[in-house]
Amino acid sequence: MRTGRFGHLNGIVITCILTLCLGSLHAIALKSKLFTRFGGKTNAKESPISYKTLYIDQNIDHFGFLEDGTFKQRYLLSDKYWHQPGGPILFYTGNEGDITWFCNNTGFMWEVAKELGAMLIFAEHRYYGESMPFGEASYSDSKHLNFLTSEQALADFAVLIKMIKSTIPGAQRSPVIAIGGSYGGMLSAWFRMKYPNIVVGALAASAPIWQFPGMVPCGAFLKTVTQDFAKSGYNCEVNIRKSWSAINNISSTASGLEWLSAEFSLCDSLKNKNDVMNFKNWLQETWVNLAMVDYPYEANFLQPLPRWPIQVVCKYLTMDSTASDKLLLRGVSQAAKVYYNYTGSSSCLNISQTATGNLGILGWFYQACTEMVMPMCTDGVNDMFEPEEWNFQAFSDECKSMFGVRPRADWAEVVYGGKDIGAHSNIIFSNGVLDPWSAGGVTHNISESLVSILIPDGAHHLDLRYSNDLDPPTVRAARALEIKYFKEWIRQAKKVHRSYLNSRLKQYKASWEITDDAN
Amino acid sequence: MRTGRFGHLNGIVITCILTLCLGSLHAIALKSKLFTRFGGKTNAKESPISYKTLYIDQNIDHFGFLEDGTFKQRYLLSDKYWHQPGGPILFYTGNEGDITWFCNNTGFMWEVAKELGAMLIFAEHRYYGESMPFGEASYSDSKHLNFLTSEQALADFAVLIKMIKSTIPGAQRSPVIAIGGSYGGMLSAWFRMKYPNIVVGALAASAPIWQFPGMVPCGAFLKTVTQDFAKSGYNCEVNIRKSWSAINNISSTASGLEWLSAEFSLCDSLKNKNDVMNFKNWLQETWVNLAMVDYPYEANFLQPLPRWPIQVVCKYLTMDSTASDKLLLRGVSQAAKVYYNYTGSSSCLNISQTATGNLGILGWFYQACTEMVMPMCTDGVNDMFEPEEWNFQAFSDECKSMFGVRPRADWAEVVYGGKDIGAHSNIIFSNGVLDPWSAGGVTHNISESLVSILIPDGAHHLDLRYSNDLDPPTVRAARALEIKYFKEWIRQAKKVHRSYLNSRLKQYKASWEITDDAN
Repeated sequence: MRTGRFGHLNGIVITCILTLCLGSLHAIALKSKLFTRFGGKTNAKESPISYKTLYIDQNIDHFGFLEDGTFKQRYLLSDKYWHQPGGPILFYTGNEGDITWFCNNTGFMWEVAKELGAMLIFAEHRYYGESMPFGEASYSDSKHLNFLTSEQALADFAVLIKMIKSTIPGAQRSPVIAIGGSYGGMLSAWFRMKYPNIVVGALAASAPIWQFPGMVPCGAFLKTVTQDFAKSGYNCEVNIRKSWSAINNISSTASGLEWLSAEFSLCDSLKNKNDVMNFKNWLQETWVNLAMVDYPYEANFLQPLPRWPIQVVCKYLTMDSTASDKLLLRGVSQAAKVYYNYTGSSSCLNISQTATGNLGILGWFYQACTEMVMPMCTDGVNDMFEPEEWNFQAFSDECKSMFGVRPRADWAEVVYGGKDIGAHSNIIFSNGVLDPWSAGGVTHNISESLVSILIPDGAHHLDLRYSNDLDPPTVRAARALEIKYFKEWIRQAKKVHRSYLNSRLKQYKASWEITDDAN
Repeated sequence: MRTGRFGHLNGIVITCILTLCLGSLHAIALKSKLFTRFGGKTNAKESPISYKTLYIDQNIDHFGFLEDGTFKQRYLLSDKYWHQPGGPILFYTGNEGDITWFCNNTGFMWEVAKELGAMLIFAEHRYYGESMPFGEASYSDSKHLNFLTSEQALADFAVLIKMIKSTIPGAQRSPVIAIGGSYGGMLSAWFRMKYPNIVVGALAASAPIWQFPGMVPCGAFLKTVTQDFAKSGYNCEVNIRKSWSAINNISSTASGLEWLSAEFSLCDSLKNKNDVMNFKNWLQETWVNLAMVDYPYEANFLQPLPRWPIQVVCKYLTMDSTASDKLLLRGVSQAAKVYYNYTGSSSCLNISQTATGNLGILGWFYQACTEMVMPMCTDGVNDMFEPEEWNFQAFSDECKSMFGVRPRADWAEVVYGGKDIGAHSNIIFSNGVLDPWSAGGVTHNISESLVSILIPDGAHHLDLRYSNDLDPPTVRAARALEIKYFKEWIRQAKKVHRSYLNSRLKQYKASWEITDDAN
């Protein structure tokens, strides 16, 4: 699927994390593993989830009529718990990856379906998984990528729901609630904003809808990562901050490069400055990923990890200021291996795996290079990383060379409202305080029906995961509150429908009376 | 501007009226005169309006990144009455024509600007007037027409307002109210729905946002036209209903064709069945236009006309059932001449003028052939026209042959909500009861802030016109109520802003206290 067009990605570094990749600075590091764990083991305690895999024909272009082709969008449907007619529909607004992965990793929906008598739908985002507008040619060039936008994806969702309601008996009056996490959460929020006719409300979990130019400081994200490490162990963030110059020192000699490669059990030895830069980006991404998946129980989301993995990592990073560079880096190496080799099954660590790419990641790169412009920066003071400014021009130039398109820094704010979203309604913005993406999220109530739920002990959309005995009370409370809002939205929708029926009835009665008089 | 691509329009008939053209049945009759009166005399009693003519660079494609060109969108700006800083902005969402024409025909905005201390902006719709995305090539083929959609136009408006607010000193906090009539009114309503971050409210005058498939009966529009004639004179609609068979009878012989051509003072004699069909479509359009501009005073909107023109027309159509075909058609001819020759300056009536086309009309044809699918039908019983069903397939086929695109009948409902618009706010839907477009408009309150204003004696967006001594009290009341809502929205917006400032202040104070404690 990757053609020459994108073949020079190797030389480019994007820090790409979880289901959101951040176009970091002008440096980009690929991470292919993110989407290799589809269908991985879930924490489900109940019987395995089951669903129908279905497809709908979607217009390739909803916003123009020249391109009149269609493609098959995949969606997963479970009506096991659905109370029809009229039972609600929980609709997952799929993000940048295979929808089965999101389906397997959104246990909350499966758990709540029973309580609400809800149908579940997981809709795949175009250009990901199997939902390829042009089949194998979808990623072949910028012409074929032209229909990969959030607006097109939202239109797909709207068309899909309209079709479901008009074809599934009993679904016509079903209130639909959008649910999503990360970029999928952004889509859920935007879906309710742009299509309140289609969804009665949205749960936008860990959705950084304000991680756009001018809305939050570009350093906030990595500052949050730093805070997670600072509070997880003595001297932890101090030593990570020091590690970068230690790497620079050690890597300045050939023997140092050898030592580093051996110490970190790298599959391919570091050979030059470029390798060292990639190595540092890979480490930075490791810390970022750990902040995102700092869950309170053993989990296997990005990697198999122990409970509270940052605390485990930090145990190796307690050395004081007298520690030598090598002692410090030995600790860093052991810390990194918590992330990469918790199960002990890796014979070596592979930083070049980031160059293999993956369809999902390429798609997100394209989105970051068009609409999803999310500035990131570091200063080395408020965060534990090497200082680097946000350089939009350099980023834009790289996008131009990579995809032949330039990002539009202001568009997301124009189209999705930026901070002026007060006129909308029925959206829950949930954020884990440990999650670096919370820095770009909505973390205060905007109105009575645009509400923020903060989960102090939560990492990236912990609330969307299956419940677990080790869940902190804060995430249990968050889920309970989310369900309360769902019920309220469903109640509202039914009330609106009853009121509509009553007004229709009145109209009919009035017309009958006129007829009676006429006779 | 019209290339061979559209050269075969002659054979196609669309009934095209005022600023909205309806893709009528599978028959299409062009009417070029609609856009030839730009800059015509207004009813302004004050000094002539004055404005700056300005241009903004807009992306040709807001929803894709492959096409990265820009074009100059024209807009007109008047700040004569603007109270800066913070005075409101009244923003006309331009429809399918030269913006100066709408500017000159929307006296209400000029009159209200002084009262509100408002800046006025009239934004031209892309592909009309001077705002051509590809210059002279804009209409050359379906590839160049691909960016002519309402969604692109709304995005233009949003980008323009963002630019105004960020560059004009004192405008940053100015609440913006969208105002439009007819298709422009639909755009105003949709603008508020889709971009409540940009406009605090909208006045959608005579905006048939429900004139789409499945929302209102396809016969409602021409039934309203019929009702206007029925109540404007004895036997008026009865005789028009009879006129079609009279035309069919008379035109069945060569001498009859000659008689008809002479009686109607046609510039070109009718020669065959096709001419007769065009003649009947032209007459039908005449009655429709009269219904739209049935104003209570002499006016020159589509044509120079007397006050209450339908009453004048109907004076020629009072004959009883014993009247011969020729007597009946003589009356019809005199009635038509009220519309076409009120000033007595026309030496003949030209039904073939409909074939010359016009850029604005071509654009609307394209829009009708893509998103703006507005079913129309007649049964000859509830209306005074020859029966004709709505035939979407035939319509679609003609669109395909004309523009190489097919209309999407369901899209408008998906993207703009159809009848499920209750979640939005701050929209006034004003409708004149005489206006046939009211049949597809919102004529009841949907919520406290989605309100309908009915003007019993009003034709097509009478409320947007300059005030006139002969205005009925109902339109005066409508305008007063509209201004009341404007003031309420402005008050709300200022309240929201104050509350935002207070919350920021609280945050700052809180952060200072923390700093104090830390020290």
